[in-house]
Amino acid sequence: MNNMTISSTKEHESGHRKIEWARAHMPILANIKARFAREKPFKGRRIGICLHVEAKTGVWLDALTAGGAEVTITGSPGSTQDDVAEALNKHPSITVLGAKADSRETHDHHCRDVLRSKPDIIADNGADLLTLLATEPEFEALRTTIRGSTEETTTGAYRLRENNVNLDFATWVINDTQAKRIVENRYGVGSSVVDGVMRATNVMLHGKTVVVVGYGYCGSGVAQRFRGMGAHVIVVERDPMHRLEAHLEGFRTADLDDCLDQAQILVTVTGRDGALKFDAITRLRDGCILANAGHFSSEIEVDRLESAAISIKDCRDGVKEYQFDGGRRVFLLTDGNLVNLAAGDGNPIEIMDLGLALQSLSLEQMALLGRSVATGIHPVSLEIEREVCSLALHAWV
Amino acid sequence: MNNMTISSTKEHESGHRKIEWARAHMPILANIKARFAREKPFKGRRIGICLHVEAKTGVWLDALTAGGAEVTITGSPGSTQDDVAEALNKHPSITVLGAKADSRETHDHHCRDVLRSKPDIIADNGADLLTLLATEPEFEALRTTIRGSTEETTTGAYRLRENNVNLDFATWVINDTQAKRIVENRYGVGSSVVDGVMRATNVMLHGKTVVVVGYGYCGSGVAQRFRGMGAHVIVVERDPMHRLEAHLEGFRTADLDDCLDQAQILVTVTGRDGALKFDAITRLRDGCILANAGHFSSEIEVDRLESAAISIKDCRDGVKEYQFDGGRRVFLLTDGNLVNLAAGDGNPIEIMDLGLALQSLSLEQMALLGRSVATGIHPVSLEIEREVCSLALHAWV
Amino acid sequence: MNNMTISSTKEHESGHRKIEWARAHMPILANIKARFAREKPFKGRRIGICLHVEAKTGVWLDALTAGGAEVTITGSPGSTQDDVAEALNKHPSITVLGAKADSRETHDHHCRDVLRSKPDIIADNGADLLTLLATEPEFEALRTTIRGSTEETTTGAYRLRENNVNLDFATWVINDTQAKRIVENRYGVGSSVVDGVMRATNVMLHGKTVVVVGYGYCGSGVAQRFRGMGAHVIVVERDPMHRLEAHLEGFRTADLDDCLDQAQILVTVTGRDGALKFDAITRLRDGCILANAGHFSSEIEVDRLESAAISIKDCRDGVKEYQFDGGRRVFLLTDGNLVNLAAGDGNPIEIMDLGLALQSLSLEQMALLGRSVATGIHPVSLEIEREVCSLALHAWV
Amino acid sequence: MNNMTISSTKEHESGHRKIEWARAHMPILANIKARFAREKPFKGRRIGICLHVEAKTGVWLDALTAGGAEVTITGSPGSTQDDVAEALNKHPSITVLGAKADSRETHDHHCRDVLRSKPDIIADNGADLLTLLATEPEFEALRTTIRGSTEETTTGAYRLRENNVNLDFATWVINDTQAKRIVENRYGVGSSVVDGVMRATNVMLHGKTVVVVGYGYCGSGVAQRFRGMGAHVIVVERDPMHRLEAHLEGFRTADLDDCLDQAQILVTVTGRDGALKFDAITRLRDGCILANAGHFSSEIEVDRLESAAISIKDCRDGVKEYQFDGGRRVFLLTDGNLVNLAAGDGNPIEIMDLGLALQSLSLEQMALLGRSVATGIHPVSLEIEREVCSLALHAWV
Repeated sequence: MNNMTISSTKEHESGHRKIEWARAHMPILANIKARFAREKPFKGRRIGICLHVEAKTGVWLDALTAGGAEVTITGSPGSTQDDVAEALNKHPSITVLGAKADSRETHDHHCRDVLRSKPDIIADNGADLLTLLATEPEFEALRTTIRGSTEETTTGAYRLRENNVNLDFATWVINDTQAKRIVENRYGVGSSVVDGVMRATNVMLHGKTVVVVGYGYCGSGVAQRFRGMGAHVIVVERDPMHRLEAHLEGFRTADLDDCLDQAQILVTVTGRDGALKFDAITRLRDGCILANAGHFSSEIEVDRLESAAISIKDCRDGVKEYQFDGGRRVFLLTDGNLVNLAAGDGNPIEIMDLGLALQSLSLEQMALLGRSVATGIHPVSLEIEREVCSLALHAWV
Repeated sequence: MNNMTISSTKEHESGHRKIEWARAHMPILANIKARFAREKPFKGRRIGICLHVEAKTGVWLDALTAGGAEVTITGSPGSTQDDVAEALNKHPSITVLGAKADSRETHDHHCRDVLRSKPDIIADNGADLLTLLATEPEFEALRTTIRGSTEETTTGAYRLRENNVNLDFATWVINDTQAKRIVENRYGVGSSVVDGVMRATNVMLHGKTVVVVGYGYCGSGVAQRFRGMGAHVIVVERDPMHRLEAHLEGFRTADLDDCLDQAQILVTVTGRDGALKFDAITRLRDGCILANAGHFSSEIEVDRLESAAISIKDCRDGVKEYQFDGGRRVFLLTDGNLVNLAAGDGNPIEIMDLGLALQSLSLEQMALLGRSVATGIHPVSLEIEREVCSLALHAWV
Repeated sequence: MNNMTISSTKEHESGHRKIEWARAHMPILANIKARFAREKPFKGRRIGICLHVEAKTGVWLDALTAGGAEVTITGSPGSTQDDVAEALNKHPSITVLGAKADSRETHDHHCRDVLRSKPDIIADNGADLLTLLATEPEFEALRTTIRGSTEETTTGAYRLRENNVNLDFATWVINDTQAKRIVENRYGVGSSVVDGVMRATNVMLHGKTVVVVGYGYCGSGVAQRFRGMGAHVIVVERDPMHRLEAHLEGFRTADLDDCLDQAQILVTVTGRDGALKFDAITRLRDGCILANAGHFSSEIEVDRLESAAISIKDCRDGVKEYQFDGGRRVFLLTDGNLVNLAAGDGNPIEIMDLGLALQSLSLEQMALLGRSVATGIHPVSLEIEREVCSLALHAWV
Repeated sequence: MNNMTISSTKEHESGHRKIEWARAHMPILANIKARFAREKPFKGRRIGICLHVEAKTGVWLDALTAGGAEVTITGSPGSTQDDVAEALNKHPSITVLGAKADSRETHDHHCRDVLRSKPDIIADNGADLLTLLATEPEFEALRTTIRGSTEETTTGAYRLRENNVNLDFATWVINDTQAKRIVENRYGVGSSVVDGVMRATNVMLHGKTVVVVGYGYCGSGVAQRFRGMGAHVIVVERDPMHRLEAHLEGFRTADLDDCLDQAQILVTVTGRDGALKFDAITRLRDGCILANAGHFSSEIEVDRLESAAISIKDCRDGVKEYQFDGGRRVFLLTDGNLVNLAAGDGNPIEIMDLGLALQSLSLEQMALLGRSVATGIHPVSLEIEREVCSLALHAWV
């Protein structure tokens, strides 16, 4: 049996296989599903969801429907995995709307259709559903019946607050939990960035001088993992308290300007635009590999790099060489997009297992308690956070 | 510029691009090439080579020809990269014989053609050339003119000794150097195995219980790297001295039988057949991921696994699920073949830079000293080993 | 020159030598002193202090007086180093009250005398001075002239709040800074506990199973340092979020009951009474070494241990063996008192350099701004915290 | 029970207490003693020993006598612990000769008396006994009856070979085992040096720049332990292969001259005279702490330091400050003697447990096999080494 390629004859089979692989590594949701199946907390409830339609989401929907829910979900343009969508649509209690190729406009239609399904509970992503709900007259009646909602992202919560979206039910923000912040940012991002850089380049990390720009949750995780692979890490961080912490953790610290000529690999993970300006790029050690692991692809000034280079070459999948006057070269990974997503598979499955467990228990509270939960935008309750950590320990140890 | 795929119109351009990527990460050979170009140690010499024809080899041939050599090379069946071969054949001093699809028989013909090119020096792999040279009457004259040779592998050296191949010149065995053993086995294999497992599975390593079976050079590297990624490593090792060393390095140690039910990932790296017997596999923790990083694909009893499983499923590229009576499952990576090669890109480029530098300086000695070098099968001289380590430090720090 | 003992003829010379050793390792205060000497922020100001009179304090007083301050200080009963006190009393602007042998009552008198020196600014420890100031009619006038104060300990701040001590000036709590919490608790305590255990026992840490009970700032530091010395660490922690973090950092985690029979060394660092109950002690692995690094000596139930043991033996300085019915023994370090203080020299000098720098800059603000600083009990301002971290980086890197 | 001082009324009680503390941490010898007590391999045999008379030796003698041996032992001048000697002399089968204050001449007499006890087997240290045996006419008869011997040190073995000492029985060299080399040099020395530096100085290691000169077994252990305590380690090593290994292990490497101005702590561990020359000392960073952990106190040029300094001060026990013209200072620990021995308690007990287990099983072979063992100077057999490692694992895990 030498054949390692997957011979899928049908889309939904491929989607099913992906879901099964995810399921095998999502023991927290398995545990929750078993309880949901016994207790049926969502019996008679309809859940309207906007979240990436991919394999891990599928495992989650399975837990919700085991708990009695009817689900209507739409993904985001570009991120929907069509084979997974097809597989999920075979489930009698799940309706998936949308496809990978959807335009932003089509996505808007799907969001409206999710709301037209008259959900009792909402699980939102980027506030796409909640903004429509709050502003469109069509959904005026629905506003009074929704029991509560979750919002996956901090950005979505920010958008709701920014726009003064007042809804007369509770919205719990999943990403505003300490558990998710530590597990996803420090551990998940830390290892997936190392994974992404290794895949894209096949270079040895042992003994390499790696400059990590930014030492927050993500940055400290990235620095630790590169060190764990034998690299010599230099941390660049402007906040003196974080910088002192890096120093005491055994990392060399430096101002960016002072370590450019030593960097063999440089990773930005600051959450700021222009963390690595073009001018700095030109002073990097010849042959330096550049990657971005921060939230914005604008951390590295790629535009100026594109226009100023005297030559640009594709070297490998996800690796471009830029050469400057005088012969100096840098290798940019995945065009400055998040290297863990663009060159790898993103966060490990287990990270999503924890995040979707937070979703599940939050939605359960909405189902059980309804409008008796304090209205407004809040973090997930500490009890749920602790419960999910306990489940993670139970599953992972 | 969002396009990340490589749009190669011609084979040789693709090969050329691969060689250039490798070259950018082979500073030791760059240094040696510069000296060779000045000193021309191979002026008027022809080198006959049997070695994998891939990008790193191409960078090496470039250094040899810069030193004045004429080269004829054949790869091994299955490992020749045709685009690289095509690119190299454009070089006036390099002749590449063979293609990826070659049969063993065709390979034998190519080996004979390499010898028919009347080389002054030989660089062999697995003793393919040297065995022909020693045994075929056709090459009787050649035996008296060859100045010396290298042999890449320990296996090849073993084969020569086993068959009492007596040649009246020196053969230096590249892999029998301490430098290569440490750098390639401990650091190279250690990191490429972690890379391979992450690529194949996308599972989180933080907090995972990883059982590493075998704690030699390779095994200790594998154990350290998994720990470096946050895993909980248990070392299984039969030799009490190595096992004590693992214990004092902070690793839990156990007999294989006593940790089967804890393993979430198990990697064999013993160099022995049947390191993980079928009987042990059936007692593994449900969902355990199995990988082999030892020299033989027979470290894990895959055949018995194939025949005894009640179901076998392709989960992802390089991942197969085997289920047993009672429902327990294991996930086998890359059919039990070397996980760093089969699921990743093999050893990092820098490892090969060091190995091919040992080749280069050894061949240079043959060219300069000829038959005044002590005949017989020897390790590379300590002077060359030290020189290459110095060059590596110069290039990498 | 083989003589390694210190031949001090006079007390104050011994005190002076201790101060000089501390000074050599307190570069942050040296930097601040230089600025104070130029700017004289305390010119004409009197500072009343209650803080341990030992070498590091001496270096600090030197910086304050360089800034123009007149200082009256009393230590705490038991902690005053008489030789240091004598050396400091030679300084024209420093008055030290009290001696090591002082009773609690004598200490109270000294505190009153500090207040009678009519300080403009107060630096308190455990609220000894501030409580007297707020409650004794004698100091009614002083209450209206004091410009501001610092309080070293969180306990002192708690005492002030508990007793509703309202003073019409600001009190800044030094230990409530994130910088001190991280640097002192994680790094300072972590390493000094390892130091204390090694000194007290001379046992090898490599390969030892060390159970760390508690995984807060201190506990995580202790766990990391034992691992750094090659120990096998098991973390016991009740809070699931901290426990999950320990697990993902690569530590084994367990309930206390489940690892008692594996512990070769057990350290409590929880901040809770009775973290290790007598019943648990009797179930420890024979020969287990017990140490406490938490704030209370009551973390280990020493009283019950004393009364229940069938034999108690002094083994070494700071080590007692307790034997139970059936022959099982435990070795208790420093009678359950803080092992880093009782068996070692307490926190490294550099930790105190940072803490006293926070004191210095806080007192400077009081001197410069006086009552314009917001009244009440507050943490040190973030600006000062950042400034001290910057100074630390400048000094230490 | 606050009293932590040991109230010993009699010398032998103090010695007994030390032995008991050692015994509690020597499980390998406990195991061997139990078997010896059953099997009596030394029944009717007399063992003549020259080895440091201290607590751990006492535990070993106890195991030998349990096996039926009669023992006569002398220590070395200066290292004999008189209280331990007194305690051991109470044992009916043990005779201890000598005291701490002995001169070299007295020691020589004691060695002769050991031989006059007509031992069947010898355990030597530095070849003191064997040299007398081989050269003094008085012991001519004894030479023909001795069954075999051990020699603790590599230096002793060297002395025997140097002087062409030919004895017609086997001498097994304990320190020439791989097990002892790894366990004692890498782990034992590594941790005891860190222990010694912390005790002597009470400085923080986190974030300190520590230069480790020498990266052999001992040096690599020292480097790893300092890193384990949070220090920033720079490795100085002349051999390019070891230096490359350090680099790939994640350590910065440098030439000594290039890191003198960065060193906050510098440890020599090379085994060479003059590893740190006076000229280099004068260029160290102001306030650098100097320690030697190599075999010779002459690794640091202390003599020239003594004569060139403009001022020398005792700072603390074991710490001297040397100041040069211009004001620069260095702090030398324990006068350049081995810092782990002079400022600490030397190697942890467990290391000696392993070493004395090698002694025990070697002597047993001499007792059982006598002159059938191959004569000459040899390392301990691999079987014994493996057996001791197995016993260590059994005891320590």
